[in-house]
Amino acid sequence: MSDDRLNQQIRLAARPEGAIRPGDFQLVDVPTPDIGDGEVLVESRYLAVEPAMKGWMEARVDYTAPINIGDVMRGWGTGVVVASNNPKYPVGTTVSAMLGWQRYVASNGRDVPLSPIPEGVPHPVAMNLLGITGMTAWFGMLDIGQPQAGETVLVSGAAGATGSVAGQLARIRGARVVGIAGGREKCDWLTGELGFDGAVDYKAGDTVARVRELCPDGIDVYYDNVGGEILDIALANLAQGARVVLCGGISRYNATGHIPGPVNYFNLIYRSARMEGFIVGRYAQRFGEAAQGLAEYYKRGELRSRETILKGFDQLPQALMNLFTGDNIGKQMVEV
Amino acid sequence: MSDDRLNQQIRLAARPEGAIRPGDFQLVDVPTPDIGDGEVLVESRYLAVEPAMKGWMEARVDYTAPINIGDVMRGWGTGVVVASNNPKYPVGTTVSAMLGWQRYVASNGRDVPLSPIPEGVPHPVAMNLLGITGMTAWFGMLDIGQPQAGETVLVSGAAGATGSVAGQLARIRGARVVGIAGGREKCDWLTGELGFDGAVDYKAGDTVARVRELCPDGIDVYYDNVGGEILDIALANLAQGARVVLCGGISRYNATGHIPGPVNYFNLIYRSARMEGFIVGRYAQRFGEAAQGLAEYYKRGELRSRETILKGFDQLPQALMNLFTGDNIGKQMVEV
Repeated sequence: MSDDRLNQQIRLAARPEGAIRPGDFQLVDVPTPDIGDGEVLVESRYLAVEPAMKGWMEARVDYTAPINIGDVMRGWGTGVVVASNNPKYPVGTTVSAMLGWQRYVASNGRDVPLSPIPEGVPHPVAMNLLGITGMTAWFGMLDIGQPQAGETVLVSGAAGATGSVAGQLARIRGARVVGIAGGREKCDWLTGELGFDGAVDYKAGDTVARVRELCPDGIDVYYDNVGGEILDIALANLAQGARVVLCGGISRYNATGHIPGPVNYFNLIYRSARMEGFIVGRYAQRFGEAAQGLAEYYKRGELRSRETILKGFDQLPQALMNLFTGDNIGKQMVEV
Repeated sequence: MSDDRLNQQIRLAARPEGAIRPGDFQLVDVPTPDIGDGEVLVESRYLAVEPAMKGWMEARVDYTAPINIGDVMRGWGTGVVVASNNPKYPVGTTVSAMLGWQRYVASNGRDVPLSPIPEGVPHPVAMNLLGITGMTAWFGMLDIGQPQAGETVLVSGAAGATGSVAGQLARIRGARVVGIAGGREKCDWLTGELGFDGAVDYKAGDTVARVRELCPDGIDVYYDNVGGEILDIALANLAQGARVVLCGGISRYNATGHIPGPVNYFNLIYRSARMEGFIVGRYAQRFGEAAQGLAEYYKRGELRSRETILKGFDQLPQALMNLFTGDNIGKQMVEV
C-alpha cells in the first residue's frame, strides 16, 4: 500500500573528528516499510537536531548508546499517520516520536513509542515543547529544581532552546526568573517576550556584579546549561537549601576540551544545597505527563516557543552543523 | 543552693591566626548560676572537640555564627542534672546538650535544649554517637545518602569520628561498605571491628585502582569527608542515580588554602546523580529521632563507638589542637 511513496534516510557514514562535516552522513533511498497487524505508517513532517547528537555520532560517551556506522541518525520528530492497522492511531493522527532521520517509519506504537500531539499545537511547537527540549526543561526545572513561588531562579544559556523553556516554566510557577545570555538582543527577548524578571548579558563583562544585583537574596534554583565560570559564579551566590540543576545539554561542551571543576562547590555545604545532573531518558515513563502540562501552558499563552526552521529533508546535516557554529535563538529543526 | 560549687569556663581570648594556640583561650572562675522556676543545673561530665570549632573561633565563615571574643567556647557535652526545679528533668538525669566549655550550665530545657541520654549508653558513647558526630553521620548518610540494601557505599575519612559512624550506619542498612583511610592500622580496624566490606589505604598510592576493584559496579553513595583528589576519584566511579554526600566536617580543610573544584562533576549528568552538602544544624528538630536510632543500634551491639579521651577540664584546648595535628581514631573528648 505504500509502494508509491519514496522513503529516504540519512545514515551515519563516518564518526566526526572535530567538527561535524557533510561527509559524515549518507543520504539513501530505501523501500517504504510495509505495515503489519497493529502497525501504522508515520510520515515525518519536522525533524529536530540536538547538541547531544554529536556525542551519539562520536560514540565517545558511555552514558547513552552510540549510533553505529550505517545506522539511521537517531532523532526526535513529528509526523502524521498516513496508513493504519491500529485503531489507537487512525490515519491523520499527528504524533511526536523518535522517528529518526527518515521520511517514513512503521511502528506498532510501542517499538517506536508514539505520543499524539494535542489539538491546537502546531508541529514546530510540538517539536520544541513536546520533544527532547521540552522534556529536558520540564523535568530539569520542575522535578529537580523545584522552584517555589517567590524564589529566585537563575538560568544560563537562557536564550537557548532548553533554557528559554526552563526559565518560562519557573516563571509560570511563580518564581522570580533571571536569565544569562550573550548579547543585548537575546537579553531583551528574555525580559520582553518571555517575561523574565531580569537578564544578564555575559558578553558585557560584569557578570559577577550583575548576578549579585539581580539576585540580592541569593539563588534558590540555578539551571545550568553552560558550566565553567558561570557555574562558579552561581555557586558563590546560592541561597540556603538551593538546588543546582546540571542539564544534560551541557555535555556538548565536553567536546571542546578540559573544563575545570567548580571551585565554589564548597558552598553546597555552607548552604545545605544540592547539585544534580540528569539524562532526560531517565524520565521516559513520564513524558506524557510533561507533554500534557507543556501543551496546556502553551495553549493558555503562558509559554512561548521559538524555532529556527530550515526547509528540506536533506538540510538536516546543515541544521545540525549550525548548532555548533550559529548563534540561533530557540529550537533548530527541519521541515521535511 | 549551688554556692559550694566552683564554676569554671574557657572563653575565647583571641582569634587564631593559622594554627590554634593555647593563648587563644582564657580559663576563668565565675559564680555557679542559680536556677529559677522551671530550671535545672547541669554539671558537665564530658565535653567534645570538633574540627568546626576552628571556623567558629576564626569567624571567617558565614554559614554559622562565630564565637565572639570573651564568649564561652561553644561545644557539645554530656552532663548530669544536679539541681532541679523542673519535673521533666529530675536530679540524676543524664543529658547531652550544647553545654559549652564550662563546668555548670543552667537551663529550662529549651534555651539550652537537653536530650536525656538513654539508659545503657555510657557518657563517652553518648558524647560521640548522640552528639554532633552521630547527628552528622545519621542525617548525612541516611537522609541525604539513603543507602539501600545491596548498594555500594564509599566513605572517605572512614576512620574518623563521623566517617566511622556513617559507614557503620550504611552497613546496618544492608549496604556493602568500603572505607578510605590512611594506614594499615586504620584499614584493619574498619574491616575488622567495624565490619566494613573493604578498605582502601590512601597512603599505599593505588587509590584509583583499589576503589575500582572494591566498587566494580560503581558507587551508589559516596560520603565525602575530605574533598580534593579522592572526591574526583569517587565522582569518576559513580553508579547511575548515585548520591554524593558532602559532609560539613570537610569545612576544616578550607583553612589550609585553595582546593580545586572536582573536575569529574560532569559525571553527575551522565549518571543522573546528585551531590549534596549540609550543615547538621539544619536537622536540629530531628536530633531526638536520630539519638534514639543511634542508641538502639549501639545497645544491640551493631554500632561501635571509639573515643580518645583526655582527662581534666583544662585539657580542652589541647584536645582541640590535637584534632589538627594528631592521627586520632574515633572521637576526641575531655573528661571533665
